[in-house]
Amino acid sequence: MAETFGVRLQERLRELGPLCVGVDASSALLDAWHRPDSVEGLEFCALAVLEAVTGVAAAIKPQVAFFERFGSAGYRVLERLIRDAHDAELLVVADAKRGDVDWTNEGYAQAWLRDESPLAVDALTVSPYLGVAALGPLFDAAAASGRGVFVVAATSNSEGRSLQEARTFEQERVQEMVLRSVAEMNQRDEGLGSFGVVLGATRDAPDFDLATMRGPYLVPGLGAQGADVKDVARLFERCEQGTVLVNVARAILFAGPERRGLLDAARRWRDDLREAL
Amino acid sequence: MAETFGVRLQERLRELGPLCVGVDASSALLDAWHRPDSVEGLEFCALAVLEAVTGVAAAIKPQVAFFERFGSAGYRVLERLIRDAHDAELLVVADAKRGDVDWTNEGYAQAWLRDESPLAVDALTVSPYLGVAALGPLFDAAAASGRGVFVVAATSNSEGRSLQEARTFEQERVQEMVLRSVAEMNQRDEGLGSFGVVLGATRDAPDFDLATMRGPYLVPGLGAQGADVKDVARLFERCEQGTVLVNVARAILFAGPERRGLLDAARRWRDDLREAL
Repeated sequence: MAETFGVRLQERLRELGPLCVGVDASSALLDAWHRPDSVEGLEFCALAVLEAVTGVAAAIKPQVAFFERFGSAGYRVLERLIRDAHDAELLVVADAKRGDVDWTNEGYAQAWLRDESPLAVDALTVSPYLGVAALGPLFDAAAASGRGVFVVAATSNSEGRSLQEARTFEQERVQEMVLRSVAEMNQRDEGLGSFGVVLGATRDAPDFDLATMRGPYLVPGLGAQGADVKDVARLFERCEQGTVLVNVARAILFAGPERRGLLDAARRWRDDLREAL
Repeated sequence: MAETFGVRLQERLRELGPLCVGVDASSALLDAWHRPDSVEGLEFCALAVLEAVTGVAAAIKPQVAFFERFGSAGYRVLERLIRDAHDAELLVVADAKRGDVDWTNEGYAQAWLRDESPLAVDALTVSPYLGVAALGPLFDAAAASGRGVFVVAATSNSEGRSLQEARTFEQERVQEMVLRSVAEMNQRDEGLGSFGVVLGATRDAPDFDLATMRGPYLVPGLGAQGADVKDVARLFERCEQGTVLVNVARAILFAGPERRGLLDAARRWRDDLREAL
């Protein structure tokens, strides 16, 4: 790809606003949609969401767990969704939270972050439990192919807090260590960097100046998880426009399955987010 | 399944010894085997390893990244490997290090830990970055179907150390928090529990009495990663026999592709581990 992920994302955010729609085809959603809890139900759901939010959302975020639950057949649907989204010029952030030792992360880089990857997405979420430095092969593959990586820093759920706020030997909290490490990697880029972090909208502002990231934020936690648009605006008030991608899933998905319902809900969220951020 | 994972694993460990063989079909391995770096190469490799170590190893541990790198086609190979391993009465531990919020973890549970799962394995590795408590749906699914979960506590690589040794608000290090949380869940089981942890053999003994886990340990880090059999023996010297599953991957895999080479290497490791533990 000619441009970096950071540059492409920022253009899209400025054009369409900060909305990212989560494609979370859980059993509960398919049930609410009166669709079978099967790979056919999954495919119907994924493509219906894509169709409804094209031109409204800046990106979609398929939650990989809800594809993996159908094994290889679910992954075939994910491959199709990614292709179709690219044809529709929607950015795709795969929410996979992958992460392992560096030797193994090369395998994940081959899966998601190369031009020839079967699941080639615009960006991938990764988990730093084995160390941010161990994620090197993922950063390298992303940088080489104009893709991005979002490292999970502080999540929207309460159960992760005690680990994410634990203090390292240097008295830095884990979430700030992640924020700082990712920010350091963005200093070499011109324009918005391609390495971002996941930062839950339900969390307090970290001890890190969010305006110095020089990379994008992926923000879950709105709607069903308890945060609202004002929480996001407050958390990122000092950040440049076009750096925050806000994920909304259940609050839009359960307005389906009809296109009208999905589209109206997505537009409402887009407008609210645009106005606030 | 009639018995719990813990009971089945302990029987197997007492019968065959502690060896688990990692199925890590990286590009480097396929190259060393003079096989194409393709899904055909992957399938050849996975089935050759399975065939060679049946009757020698207690379990195999497919590293999911090396299947995911071929997308849905790679997952079809993984599905076949799991089926064939079960037919050969080898336990399968999928090394996926999955982990997300609880709502999403239900999707991963459906993928890996139910009788009807497309990727139904004996046990799954999971990552606690979003909190051990958020992994609840995975523990519940495993307990209900006689399967197991290994939570990553302290890994074999050095990059993870500062996070895993960070101290929570209660002054407990993250790795000990994971060990303690998992041990608490095993107290309700008779015999060996089905919830274990991943503990790298390259690491110092944690501030937790490993003999009180009442669940199994999955131990990476031998051979290519620097630890040896004596390190494992020292780390687990106070643990009951039949509670430690020791993974060896590259040191066996690169002795292939011929059956003879793989088998001889696997037998050597099995004998050394059996004698030491």
